[in-house]
Amino acid sequence: MSKKVTLVGAGLVGSLLSIYLAKRGYNVNVFERRPDMRKTKGYAGKSINLALSDRGLRGLEGVGIADEIRKIAIPMYGRFLHYQDGTTGYQPYGKEGQAINSVSRAGINMMLMDLAETLPNVKFNFEERCTGVDSVKGVSSFVNESTQAQTTINSDLIFGSDGAFSAARLSAMLGHDRFEYNQFYIEAGYKELVIPAGPNGEFLIEKNALHIWPRKSFMMIALPNIDGTFTCTLFMPFTGENSFEKLKTREEVKEFFDRVFPDAVPLMPTLLDDFMTNPTASLVTVKCFPWTFDDKLALIGDAAHAIVPFYGQGMNCGFEDCVVLNELIDKHKENWPAILNEYQILRKPDGDAVADLAIGNFTEMRDKTADPKFHLQKKIEAWFSEKHPDKWVPQYSMVTYRPDIRYSYALKRGKEQDEIMQKVMAAVPGIEEKWDTPEVEKLILQHL
Amino acid sequence: MSKKVTLVGAGLVGSLLSIYLAKRGYNVNVFERRPDMRKTKGYAGKSINLALSDRGLRGLEGVGIADEIRKIAIPMYGRFLHYQDGTTGYQPYGKEGQAINSVSRAGINMMLMDLAETLPNVKFNFEERCTGVDSVKGVSSFVNESTQAQTTINSDLIFGSDGAFSAARLSAMLGHDRFEYNQFYIEAGYKELVIPAGPNGEFLIEKNALHIWPRKSFMMIALPNIDGTFTCTLFMPFTGENSFEKLKTREEVKEFFDRVFPDAVPLMPTLLDDFMTNPTASLVTVKCFPWTFDDKLALIGDAAHAIVPFYGQGMNCGFEDCVVLNELIDKHKENWPAILNEYQILRKPDGDAVADLAIGNFTEMRDKTADPKFHLQKKIEAWFSEKHPDKWVPQYSMVTYRPDIRYSYALKRGKEQDEIMQKVMAAVPGIEEKWDTPEVEKLILQHL
Repeated sequence: MSKKVTLVGAGLVGSLLSIYLAKRGYNVNVFERRPDMRKTKGYAGKSINLALSDRGLRGLEGVGIADEIRKIAIPMYGRFLHYQDGTTGYQPYGKEGQAINSVSRAGINMMLMDLAETLPNVKFNFEERCTGVDSVKGVSSFVNESTQAQTTINSDLIFGSDGAFSAARLSAMLGHDRFEYNQFYIEAGYKELVIPAGPNGEFLIEKNALHIWPRKSFMMIALPNIDGTFTCTLFMPFTGENSFEKLKTREEVKEFFDRVFPDAVPLMPTLLDDFMTNPTASLVTVKCFPWTFDDKLALIGDAAHAIVPFYGQGMNCGFEDCVVLNELIDKHKENWPAILNEYQILRKPDGDAVADLAIGNFTEMRDKTADPKFHLQKKIEAWFSEKHPDKWVPQYSMVTYRPDIRYSYALKRGKEQDEIMQKVMAAVPGIEEKWDTPEVEKLILQHL
Repeated sequence: MSKKVTLVGAGLVGSLLSIYLAKRGYNVNVFERRPDMRKTKGYAGKSINLALSDRGLRGLEGVGIADEIRKIAIPMYGRFLHYQDGTTGYQPYGKEGQAINSVSRAGINMMLMDLAETLPNVKFNFEERCTGVDSVKGVSSFVNESTQAQTTINSDLIFGSDGAFSAARLSAMLGHDRFEYNQFYIEAGYKELVIPAGPNGEFLIEKNALHIWPRKSFMMIALPNIDGTFTCTLFMPFTGENSFEKLKTREEVKEFFDRVFPDAVPLMPTLLDDFMTNPTASLVTVKCFPWTFDDKLALIGDAAHAIVPFYGQGMNCGFEDCVVLNELIDKHKENWPAILNEYQILRKPDGDAVADLAIGNFTEMRDKTADPKFHLQKKIEAWFSEKHPDKWVPQYSMVTYRPDIRYSYALKRGKEQDEIMQKVMAAVPGIEEKWDTPEVEKLILQHL
């Protein structure tokens, strides 16, 4: 008799997890609070962009759907930098050919649901808001947002894949003693804007790059979409000198953009309307423990570890959760108490690490990418890593291209490498001129 | 027209706050989830003990009821230490005559409710569970635990004085963006035990002291009650070498107590029954922000800043919240948006500080009180402080006897003083013999 599984949330992680579990023969019932985005205009058009990288691709490959998803992805090989004085710069993301992939959240989510529904043992239920999870009895309760009908469902396993503000997690939190919980916000919020395609659908700025307008305390970024448009996101503090609270009127917005993003303004004809209409959203980090309860309920993805978007790892980390879980199902031969226990013990340090990495990368993107010293450091690291791939992998590469390296190791090792680089760069006067010499190579080797 | 105020929670802080507000002419409605403890046997008999000190007394004095409460309090002038080898020690809490006061939680709570009910404009409603607070509209909702009747009440102000697991706070958290929230547990839990009175109602160990059995990773404490009994509390990790998980059977408990608390066992005839029957409870810290919402809802006491009990400051800090609020009502002449805004900005650093102080004092009580070096340090500090009261107040005294000094200052200054003491004690060989000499005095003065 196959086991019944309930998933709370049909977002990216819930949809992928449904495929993993269904392929193993579980009967999977997915309950999603929102309407089916495949039938709702608003969602399909909304173009939040994500950067799919190797950890996420590995998650898709595990169920054989990576090639399908690649069809809607645009590879980005580096950061294209737009400085305030009108000059530009470029910084490759890794070695030749290494890229991260711009995908629309709605696009990948809809494709995952379509792929899941080709399996006979996955069923999606929409507009079903979770009102509680009883992890002792294995009972989940939902109310239909349209009909108000109440549903109570019994299952052998329940997964809370319902995001940063998880109802499943809240229910577990209220029902369990000694639950550790921390949610905090960075001072910046974000607002989405757009650069439309050219008259013939062409990309108006470099297609295969992630564009950044670094401005120290704030930044704008732009990611390409397959229709030739770019989704722009302005990240900026809510209050203070350069902040959302200072941009209340169309005049204030126009003056600000003309001054700080002069090369972008001509590309953004709907800027003022978009700015006044689109919401300003906040950026939360959630850390909690445990992630599993009573051998029946597990949190996964953002529900277990919501992070800020600056390392482009939210979806990738959630997909990796599925990979880890899948490996543990093999290892423990479907002994779920053992699987769930090892899942949370193994994965918690990585969830914490990717949260810290993500916050750290905000400073890097908005501030350091405008600093020549930082570019030099990246250049030296890339050069040294090329010569000694066994001794040095840049942190960005560990996080982005090396699913075999844990986030927690990448965080720790990245800090060590950064300290070495600070020492080396301080120790060699005029390093700008001789960064790729045996002297520098020897010095780095001495510090290792 | 007098303003309507709703208080969620009739615990210590809610009951005191109702008196403060009623005396100013507000119409106060208090809703409490539990039954009226004055009519329920279980509560009156339950003898959790608290240490009422000067900040709490100041809160009671503000509404003229300190003398009433003193009648049910027993002053404790120092720590009476019980070492494992059978020897004992004593450490005064401050200068001659300075004490903290042992009171029963239920006793003081019931007296506060009785005093509040002598005012015509306070009404207590029991068995009313808060199901939500709408801070924009000023509406609070309750359901009666017996009758299931639902009540919705409109008021000008709402206070969440409903403790560490505040329903008012949860409602505000779920309804507001950018709410910072952190709850975490220390590894130790606690269990209450008892030392009964002697045959003629006499105290079987020193009455006017807080007894501690310090054992490094765990400890037992005992506080006197007016009926001659002592409430004992065992604080110990949930798991590990010396832990609650290792004490599952009566035999294990007996062996453990005989070994680690040999002088206490003969005084605890019901030890084994009490240990097996009484629950093991956890120790949470809650930090959050904001504490006020939409100029209508404010969190106060544990609902805003739940702390562990080791500095004996939970109730004292909550009563001080009432004092601060009362001063701000005067300062801002009942302009509530201004009052609530300054309340949270002024008080948040002190809520954070007392939480850190409380966690730090666990180490001090369970571990350092058994260390001769620590006793020497306290002795030097007391001596130096006596000579230079303008230059040095021991941290314990700042926290406990000096309501004019903020918790946040006491935390910061205490750390600085501790660092000075570490340096001085390391710099003077044989300081044990010459701790009260001009040499030591001069050295401390040099570090200031």
